[in-house]
Amino acid sequence: MTMREPPDATESPRFTGPRTFARLPHTTDLDGVDAAVYGMPWDGSTSFRSGARFGPEAVRSMSGMLRTYNPVQRVQVFGALSTIDYGDAPTVPGYVEETLARIERFVSTLAEQRVVGVGVGGDHSVTLAELRALAKVHGRLGLVHLDSHTDLWDAYFGKPYSHGTMFRRAIEEGITDPARMIHAGMHGPLYAAADDDIPDELGVEMVPWIELATLAPEEFAERARRRTGTGPTFLTFDVDFVDVAFCPGTGTPEVGGPTSFQALGYLRALTGIDFVGYDVVEVAPQYDPAQITALFAANVAFEMLSLIALSRA
Amino acid sequence: MTMREPPDATESPRFTGPRTFARLPHTTDLDGVDAAVYGMPWDGSTSFRSGARFGPEAVRSMSGMLRTYNPVQRVQVFGALSTIDYGDAPTVPGYVEETLARIERFVSTLAEQRVVGVGVGGDHSVTLAELRALAKVHGRLGLVHLDSHTDLWDAYFGKPYSHGTMFRRAIEEGITDPARMIHAGMHGPLYAAADDDIPDELGVEMVPWIELATLAPEEFAERARRRTGTGPTFLTFDVDFVDVAFCPGTGTPEVGGPTSFQALGYLRALTGIDFVGYDVVEVAPQYDPAQITALFAANVAFEMLSLIALSRA
Amino acid sequence: MTMREPPDATESPRFTGPRTFARLPHTTDLDGVDAAVYGMPWDGSTSFRSGARFGPEAVRSMSGMLRTYNPVQRVQVFGALSTIDYGDAPTVPGYVEETLARIERFVSTLAEQRVVGVGVGGDHSVTLAELRALAKVHGRLGLVHLDSHTDLWDAYFGKPYSHGTMFRRAIEEGITDPARMIHAGMHGPLYAAADDDIPDELGVEMVPWIELATLAPEEFAERARRRTGTGPTFLTFDVDFVDVAFCPGTGTPEVGGPTSFQALGYLRALTGIDFVGYDVVEVAPQYDPAQITALFAANVAFEMLSLIALSRA
Amino acid sequence: MTMREPPDATESPRFTGPRTFARLPHTTDLDGVDAAVYGMPWDGSTSFRSGARFGPEAVRSMSGMLRTYNPVQRVQVFGALSTIDYGDAPTVPGYVEETLARIERFVSTLAEQRVVGVGVGGDHSVTLAELRALAKVHGRLGLVHLDSHTDLWDAYFGKPYSHGTMFRRAIEEGITDPARMIHAGMHGPLYAAADDDIPDELGVEMVPWIELATLAPEEFAERARRRTGTGPTFLTFDVDFVDVAFCPGTGTPEVGGPTSFQALGYLRALTGIDFVGYDVVEVAPQYDPAQITALFAANVAFEMLSLIALSRA
Amino acid sequence: MTMREPPDATESPRFTGPRTFARLPHTTDLDGVDAAVYGMPWDGSTSFRSGARFGPEAVRSMSGMLRTYNPVQRVQVFGALSTIDYGDAPTVPGYVEETLARIERFVSTLAEQRVVGVGVGGDHSVTLAELRALAKVHGRLGLVHLDSHTDLWDAYFGKPYSHGTMFRRAIEEGITDPARMIHAGMHGPLYAAADDDIPDELGVEMVPWIELATLAPEEFAERARRRTGTGPTFLTFDVDFVDVAFCPGTGTPEVGGPTSFQALGYLRALTGIDFVGYDVVEVAPQYDPAQITALFAANVAFEMLSLIALSRA
Amino acid sequence: MTMREPPDATESPRFTGPRTFARLPHTTDLDGVDAAVYGMPWDGSTSFRSGARFGPEAVRSMSGMLRTYNPVQRVQVFGALSTIDYGDAPTVPGYVEETLARIERFVSTLAEQRVVGVGVGGDHSVTLAELRALAKVHGRLGLVHLDSHTDLWDAYFGKPYSHGTMFRRAIEEGITDPARMIHAGMHGPLYAAADDDIPDELGVEMVPWIELATLAPEEFAERARRRTGTGPTFLTFDVDFVDVAFCPGTGTPEVGGPTSFQALGYLRALTGIDFVGYDVVEVAPQYDPAQITALFAANVAFEMLSLIALSRA
Repeated sequence: MTMREPPDATESPRFTGPRTFARLPHTTDLDGVDAAVYGMPWDGSTSFRSGARFGPEAVRSMSGMLRTYNPVQRVQVFGALSTIDYGDAPTVPGYVEETLARIERFVSTLAEQRVVGVGVGGDHSVTLAELRALAKVHGRLGLVHLDSHTDLWDAYFGKPYSHGTMFRRAIEEGITDPARMIHAGMHGPLYAAADDDIPDELGVEMVPWIELATLAPEEFAERARRRTGTGPTFLTFDVDFVDVAFCPGTGTPEVGGPTSFQALGYLRALTGIDFVGYDVVEVAPQYDPAQITALFAANVAFEMLSLIALSRA
Repeated sequence: MTMREPPDATESPRFTGPRTFARLPHTTDLDGVDAAVYGMPWDGSTSFRSGARFGPEAVRSMSGMLRTYNPVQRVQVFGALSTIDYGDAPTVPGYVEETLARIERFVSTLAEQRVVGVGVGGDHSVTLAELRALAKVHGRLGLVHLDSHTDLWDAYFGKPYSHGTMFRRAIEEGITDPARMIHAGMHGPLYAAADDDIPDELGVEMVPWIELATLAPEEFAERARRRTGTGPTFLTFDVDFVDVAFCPGTGTPEVGGPTSFQALGYLRALTGIDFVGYDVVEVAPQYDPAQITALFAANVAFEMLSLIALSRA
Repeated sequence: MTMREPPDATESPRFTGPRTFARLPHTTDLDGVDAAVYGMPWDGSTSFRSGARFGPEAVRSMSGMLRTYNPVQRVQVFGALSTIDYGDAPTVPGYVEETLARIERFVSTLAEQRVVGVGVGGDHSVTLAELRALAKVHGRLGLVHLDSHTDLWDAYFGKPYSHGTMFRRAIEEGITDPARMIHAGMHGPLYAAADDDIPDELGVEMVPWIELATLAPEEFAERARRRTGTGPTFLTFDVDFVDVAFCPGTGTPEVGGPTSFQALGYLRALTGIDFVGYDVVEVAPQYDPAQITALFAANVAFEMLSLIALSRA
Repeated sequence: MTMREPPDATESPRFTGPRTFARLPHTTDLDGVDAAVYGMPWDGSTSFRSGARFGPEAVRSMSGMLRTYNPVQRVQVFGALSTIDYGDAPTVPGYVEETLARIERFVSTLAEQRVVGVGVGGDHSVTLAELRALAKVHGRLGLVHLDSHTDLWDAYFGKPYSHGTMFRRAIEEGITDPARMIHAGMHGPLYAAADDDIPDELGVEMVPWIELATLAPEEFAERARRRTGTGPTFLTFDVDFVDVAFCPGTGTPEVGGPTSFQALGYLRALTGIDFVGYDVVEVAPQYDPAQITALFAANVAFEMLSLIALSRA
Repeated sequence: MTMREPPDATESPRFTGPRTFARLPHTTDLDGVDAAVYGMPWDGSTSFRSGARFGPEAVRSMSGMLRTYNPVQRVQVFGALSTIDYGDAPTVPGYVEETLARIERFVSTLAEQRVVGVGVGGDHSVTLAELRALAKVHGRLGLVHLDSHTDLWDAYFGKPYSHGTMFRRAIEEGITDPARMIHAGMHGPLYAAADDDIPDELGVEMVPWIELATLAPEEFAERARRRTGTGPTFLTFDVDFVDVAFCPGTGTPEVGGPTSFQALGYLRALTGIDFVGYDVVEVAPQYDPAQITALFAANVAFEMLSLIALSRA
Repeated sequence: MTMREPPDATESPRFTGPRTFARLPHTTDLDGVDAAVYGMPWDGSTSFRSGARFGPEAVRSMSGMLRTYNPVQRVQVFGALSTIDYGDAPTVPGYVEETLARIERFVSTLAEQRVVGVGVGGDHSVTLAELRALAKVHGRLGLVHLDSHTDLWDAYFGKPYSHGTMFRRAIEEGITDPARMIHAGMHGPLYAAADDDIPDELGVEMVPWIELATLAPEEFAERARRRTGTGPTFLTFDVDFVDVAFCPGTGTPEVGGPTSFQALGYLRALTGIDFVGYDVVEVAPQYDPAQITALFAANVAFEMLSLIALSRA
């Protein structure tokens, strides 16, 4: 069982070689692996700007900037946590339901072997597939959801699966437990006044950005811990959680959100929760001319890996 | 019955007002209308770069550069041909089959009222919807298809509807007649040697670019006329027909193709065919930083309107 | 009198159809209309980067992201406030004085019919035309001006009309009352030390960003209310008020300014003032590759519409 | 009298130092100077996309790629022809007439000292100012005009000065002689069928692109020489003459035009004409993300300098 | 010995997974391998625009568009020719000589095992390293060089290694035989008239673009075959050979060059030469916003692989 | 001795003329000059994204936005401080050691004549050359370093000179005094846990961003003053100090850093230190599509000039 880690950055520059996440080995051999980063190149369900099918490629590209140690969390990530790039889930352009089924099968292998996955989207609808795969193994899941939208709407254009509806589907399918779900960071106009009542109706907790902005990271983390309890939980991060100035490369951007410094603060505080899976989604590189969204998402994934490393330390 | 035409360009600059195609009136009132330009904002079926859902917006934006008279064809277009912007067909992100059904209904209204439509895509799968709508009214159709790909493949990832398969579907559905179909301009690598045999197997005519490049516009047009005969025919133009230098903003670009000057030459020569519908597809503005693809597509649509005007003159 | 509002977003995606502001009806019929959004596509008077003539198009494009309800202000906007897209004022490239005259005539129609307008620029010189039109109907106006520059300079290159001089012109013309004018957010280097004395000399109030940054939104709003009193007032927002990271797409950007979160906070606090007109200006999409400036400006216009809705509730 | 030329390219890389044209000395000292390149940063009169005020900066930037010898014309340019960067003419945003007056004064100094100027635009309206300055010194001028538009329209929006009207103004002002004017390369739709008759009505010669495309460079040059005769003549090159794929960075682009190879061929053939001034205009770098338009325009200016050098050799 | 080839494109879309060239296996195991594509991420020696260190990444990204069969050459490439992505050579930013040494060692492994390499640059200086590695195995080499520059200059800034000097170095080092070298496509201004004499002085053949443009592909190929004879030869393709409209993403672009259609024609004709190595260089994706240069370079590599396949068929 | 200052901005627009820094005279005549801005166009030593060789050009371009007076510091800059654009240091692509030697010679002239320099990079390795030049004149230097990285690593790829190692080299060469060095703003992952100990081992002070974020500007300035004491000191500002949203155009960007408002606050507080030289580095315009990084860097240079002006007032 070898430690899976990036090659020595003093051998060849970080801009060298086919791009895998953080220059990790690309393999599907899970033997001895602690964590696996994988992509979900799908953008068929986005309601505004498409392009997130190239999100995994873009994040891999800028993840070359990552190094091995997290000095804020004071934790060694690569080299301590055996980590691989597990490749991308297969998708089927134009067919959301088939795509979700194929992603679910792809993630199931990881889940069954208890390798912690960090998924990279892709539009947010893909999270439903991950939740299905993980719930089969871990049972009903809690959810910590950082986003500018709740994604709890009922349907778009008369159809059930979309990047704005999947958490309602998850509740309906019984794979997440509303009593253990917390959605934070919501901002931007709503479709209707009634939208504000949806979280209550479904029994989930919602912390709009206007309120979250008044909470210190540890205060938010405490609320998340209270909400999710000790059960298995999923952490999902939509890059439109942060202000569009920090993540322009995304499908349904909103203005007036958190800075990346604030966002990393909330993420880093989320220790002590039993996360069984993670993802960062909605990176659309066509709208990211300076690659800053991809760099941010790579760092979000790195913070997620840091949480895994901390939980094992 | 008023003449539907752009406002006088000496009143306000062409960059003024909400963007409709060529600054035409946006209306669904078809009374007295000769031709209608409409959009099909769908990119769920593309096999590589997405973004064509914003194709109609981009083409409308640059269509402001169009004027009213075609000096090469020596025909008055706007002012002679009562033309409207008919708006966009509804689509459903993630659901190609439902989307095709909705586009078909949208186009059917035009077809039934014998208003000649010029569709703007959108990925090429949308053409199947247009063919279905038109075949219901006009019967089995011939096809003139300018593209770098034949789009006659059988399936992608086990699924039938894609931007690379719809002309095989059209033949199977009996809405186009292979004996009256001509596909021209094919270039770029193929999936397999056997791909080269597909046109023969299906009974359609294929003129690869390496051969088309040796034909004068009139020679090509003569072949198209021979092939399509006197029956109702559809003209479809995928912007990846031209070299990617002329149309970078597209999903599955190929290098080494025609110049825009050559392409306009082929188009202009296609007089004398009974075209009952037209489209120009695969404009993906995310890859079109200088809007040159959109401008080209707007001109393609203008040439199609010129063909209509010529046929009525 | 029908309610003028966007089409149901569950019918067709928000990226469908010719782009009007927030997908509102484009009409010049003012019957029963409460508010009208209009464009002023002019960039002839900018002193650095041009391009704002395409500002209205860009804002319309990203305004598709808007929905109908403002959850922070807790007010229904569309559906409660009958709102239209009134189109664009005519302009004359190269002729600022003629352009201002044509914009004034265009806005006068709205003003005379007491439809509250929200203008979208265009470079900031256009505000002079709006003030002229509104003063004719409402009398001398107060002004709340959020910007990184005061735009109170005397002349550029020996000529009086420019995007940096129009508020001095407004005072000279007697259409704004300096005693009821407040300019806030100024940052960036000045032409000369004496520039700092201009506000005092003209009798207006100026709150530089270095000072505004220390005020809570409500504190600023209280100062604005004290200054403008109960008379008719105009609210003008130059997108270079915010830091260029949030609004790169503008002609004379400055660094070190407010975040968009701070800016929206100041805007939302401006209740209780008798605003008879609004505008958001200086959107230059050529410098806005990810459309974030346009999205921000669309939201500024939405917050202005929210203020109208609140004042009527 | 020192030879004015670029610094030795073996001393410091061509990307070094403040950008002047071809790294020439920036000076207004005309002593011993043969040729002067200057900018006209004005875009107030463009009828579609603005931005050409940054044309001179962009062309200077890419002119670093130029070297000193023209191997096709077999002529030494820099080092043989004492050449300077004369800086930019002053302009007044928003005031076309005042701007033309200031440019005229700026160019007059060169004209009076018989330094041959090569102007860089700026939108095409600036050429009127150059013609006025040169006609005062040289008398009535002939014109060779490469463009996709004739720029012979009468008025835009009721106003006389525009980038589409200045050659009609020049005829009216008696500074150009229609009998010695030739306009070549016209393509793209026209405002009206009657537009095609304008050249005849005004007595100038027009060679549309569809005809020019059939002429060898020398055939075109022979027609130009026949038309312009032996009198003083101006050569003006609008970059929208070439296909937009080669020059995307321009205000009113057209598709289906010449390649840059064809364009250089026509230019190089124009020997034996008594050109007393030159310009290359309509470079709008906002639409030129890879700087290819600027590079092309720099080469056009280099070919013009080559014509000067050839005429003196 | 398994056939190394891309995964079945009907399993998962071509935009799936970490990007290797044409989705080939990334491995350094050369057993049974016929051809290997590798990158040389170095841009330290470019004399104008840097960025080519990301050339290999960009080409890999767009090589996803490649398929397996070349219909113009009528040859099966992937599936017939066992091909791998061999990764990238190590480089040392700031140290050209050390970098060349490391690239040479990297390529030597391939050369020694008689795996035919297709290198992807990287600025053109890297070719010197490849020539050194290949000459050690194959002896003195011939050269077919398609480029807009001869790269035969003596020195830049007093230093010998640069992307403009390496073919003179190769001659001096005795690793290429001037009598078997042909350089074609040269265009753009030269540093001095004497530059035109360099090929003669060094004893190589030079075909400037102005002459090549008059040759049919087969005529050029015949000259290349005559020049290179039967000995081992290297084929190097600088993407600035084609007009900058087709390959904007490059460091020292020139205007007025060949189209991509012409370029592919010349390449395809080069059968019957004993090429022992190939490269395509100078892809700088920072100047390639629509990825068209990368797509072209991927196709150039595919044509090179096609030549290998043809030579083995 | 004339005052060297920008031309009157009321004569010609700020977008006029060859771009020098702030439109200052470009000269190497140092007579009576107080301060000189110069460029160091070198990017050969960057470890990730190249392009900073065009940093000086980009900063000059946006420095046109600067005016003459700093209203926050209440100090007249231009007009009070005789300032020039001193041009660019020569560099040698591919040769870092030779390049550093040439830059050192270039800066030495300024240092010897006691003209205070403000350098514009270029990758950060160039600062070593400036320190060498200044230490020869002023003796061992203190350092205030704002950056997201300490640049104290030992070597990259076995080579000593890089943009990540030069401050260790400076200590080794004895040209900076570790006891008077302070590095602030560090954020982003590290290569190894041990990296955190490097500052202590070398005897310098390091203030990571997570700590700096808790300090008011004056608190940080007080620490910097305590550290640097009364001796000659250099102030170096790497634009990746600020969050990548504010400075996307840089080679090794990091997320989660300061805003530009915070950064300017720290800079403005640094009064009372005997700075003998300044630089702002790592501007890579290829990743700066809206020129915001260049504008920020121009303002950083303006704040540095303001510190000089304050120290002389």
